[in-house]
Amino acid sequence: MYEALFAYLEQTGDKVTEYLRQDSIINILKPKDIYSGVTDYVFRPAKRLRPAVLLMAYGCVNDSGKEEIALPAAAGVELFHTWTLVHDDIIDNDMKRRGGPSVHYAIAGSSRKTLGISAAHAKKYGEDIAILSGDIQQAWSVKLFSELAKNKAIDPYVALNIISYLETDVITNLLYGETLDVQYSLIYNDNNSIENIGEDNIIEMLWLKTGILYSFAAMAGALIGKNTVDINDRQVIALKEFAGNCGIAFQLQDDILGITGDEEKLGKPIGSDIREGKKTTIVLEAMRNAGPEQREFLSGILGNTNAGVKDIDKTKKLLQELNGVGYTKDLARSYIEKAIPYLEKIENSRYKDLLLMWADYMVNRRM
Amino acid sequence: MYEALFAYLEQTGDKVTEYLRQDSIINILKPKDIYSGVTDYVFRPAKRLRPAVLLMAYGCVNDSGKEEIALPAAAGVELFHTWTLVHDDIIDNDMKRRGGPSVHYAIAGSSRKTLGISAAHAKKYGEDIAILSGDIQQAWSVKLFSELAKNKAIDPYVALNIISYLETDVITNLLYGETLDVQYSLIYNDNNSIENIGEDNIIEMLWLKTGILYSFAAMAGALIGKNTVDINDRQVIALKEFAGNCGIAFQLQDDILGITGDEEKLGKPIGSDIREGKKTTIVLEAMRNAGPEQREFLSGILGNTNAGVKDIDKTKKLLQELNGVGYTKDLARSYIEKAIPYLEKIENSRYKDLLLMWADYMVNRRM
Repeated sequence: MYEALFAYLEQTGDKVTEYLRQDSIINILKPKDIYSGVTDYVFRPAKRLRPAVLLMAYGCVNDSGKEEIALPAAAGVELFHTWTLVHDDIIDNDMKRRGGPSVHYAIAGSSRKTLGISAAHAKKYGEDIAILSGDIQQAWSVKLFSELAKNKAIDPYVALNIISYLETDVITNLLYGETLDVQYSLIYNDNNSIENIGEDNIIEMLWLKTGILYSFAAMAGALIGKNTVDINDRQVIALKEFAGNCGIAFQLQDDILGITGDEEKLGKPIGSDIREGKKTTIVLEAMRNAGPEQREFLSGILGNTNAGVKDIDKTKKLLQELNGVGYTKDLARSYIEKAIPYLEKIENSRYKDLLLMWADYMVNRRM
Repeated sequence: MYEALFAYLEQTGDKVTEYLRQDSIINILKPKDIYSGVTDYVFRPAKRLRPAVLLMAYGCVNDSGKEEIALPAAAGVELFHTWTLVHDDIIDNDMKRRGGPSVHYAIAGSSRKTLGISAAHAKKYGEDIAILSGDIQQAWSVKLFSELAKNKAIDPYVALNIISYLETDVITNLLYGETLDVQYSLIYNDNNSIENIGEDNIIEMLWLKTGILYSFAAMAGALIGKNTVDINDRQVIALKEFAGNCGIAFQLQDDILGITGDEEKLGKPIGSDIREGKKTTIVLEAMRNAGPEQREFLSGILGNTNAGVKDIDKTKKLLQELNGVGYTKDLARSYIEKAIPYLEKIENSRYKDLLLMWADYMVNRRM
């Protein structure tokens, strides 16, 4: 049922990858470890959903068929997402990403041989290079947005306004979400129990960490499509709100896949959310429904970095039996239902159909 | 003899500080630790040399007296420098900066109380927040450059080109320099001895870590002053080359002050360069001139993080007696002499006088 969407995602994904591959910055990345750190995630298989949303939003308000005009921005939003992954992976101590080792972990591993340094030095060196690599990726992202106006098809003020919005509203909200995530995971006391954090704060964090960048992608696509700086344009707002709500649903589904998903398909380890003690609506709802013994068991495993495979499996089952997964599935669907009416302000087109299909896919995807 | 320069630096420094203080991004920084991380260095006493160079270069090619047109860029280059400090301080484990604790160290300290976490968690949390704070500062810097064209006095393509250049050429070179610095400090084996690294590589690192951003500041000021996108304009190139060479001299003098300076004036600890085993021309020249015993002593102290005050003092003296400091002083002067002829292409003006005075100050400053 998603054939048209998958075909579109593959096509736009290829275009974005190609655009990034031909970028001149690749030739000036030095030394080798920085080159690897900056390019590794970028050229691993990835869904490229954010650039697709940007291009679909563009198509919704511009029927010229000249999607390539928005391609620098599509590549830019993918890279912006990528640098946050590189830095988040350091912060969260994640060892795997997109089917391979995380940047800091990969560099640490290779540097033991290439530089002949101790394990402790290699760990530090891997993190140092990953910090700098993410920094360059952020810069590369901005450089791509700056190219929007190069062929004079787009008003340079549109490019400047998009860059300014990305580098203030988007980044401050996104990293506020990341900081909340760190604080929620780090602090173990009663004030920070998942019941005390509560559903509203968890949803706000999802909005900040994920929704904001999807809403930006749609907004940027619409601004470029209309060649306007007016962020209050009703179609721009409609596409932005639509994508932002879908982004929350995307992240809720991500949390579900973090419990029920297939490790190989996802390219990241299942169970790490449990060991990290990630604050999700799945855990919250399960805790609400748990009996005293179940609650005690869950409290002992959630956030326990040394939890064994057997306990992880039992926890996964419990989170499903106690309706954590089902509840979160319904919640995700409710955000899609909230999103869809925004598209009433958008004329029917192939792109609108694709966006609607994408929204549906957000809560049904297995990877 | 530097009165006119000092008056100008104070005046432009105040303007830059005021411009940053009134920026709207400050009101949306959340939570409190991110607010502190992003703003702390920015509002500590600082020399604000890079913005001054940008404004002087502007004045050299534009006699309108409307310096405020270039102010967003002046504030932007200061912030760009600032985020590299925040990330460098994590990487170098530096605990002090601009007369106060480094960002990651300050946040680690305060979070033990505010969040009630262990020392190990606090150290990690401090580094996490410092990574994210530097990320936001980079973004803030770009946002400021994007404001150049807001009042329509500057061609928006000038703003876009400056942003693009900053976010490709400047950042890749600057962080290449930082990476070399990390590698030179990390690896202790014969291939990485200071004699094997050699003067050319040390100077290249100084150019990358410091020269490039000074040359960018002058280039940006000149491009804005001429309202042109032509980076091959002869005056733009002249100011850029002038400032780049002075930047190398600035960094050589920085290395000298790292040995002979006054801790209170500098706002950072003297001796840390020695304990970190920083690869400088001072050390290189001293090693060249050292006898076997002196060489053995220096090898034992340089890069020894546990070196005591007495050994640090003896090392400082040796680096002077063995002409490391004198040699580096001469080297710094030679870069100023290389820089000055570039200004022949610039008409005489108050700003040219200030730039020449600034060049001289680079190798005579005590802070």
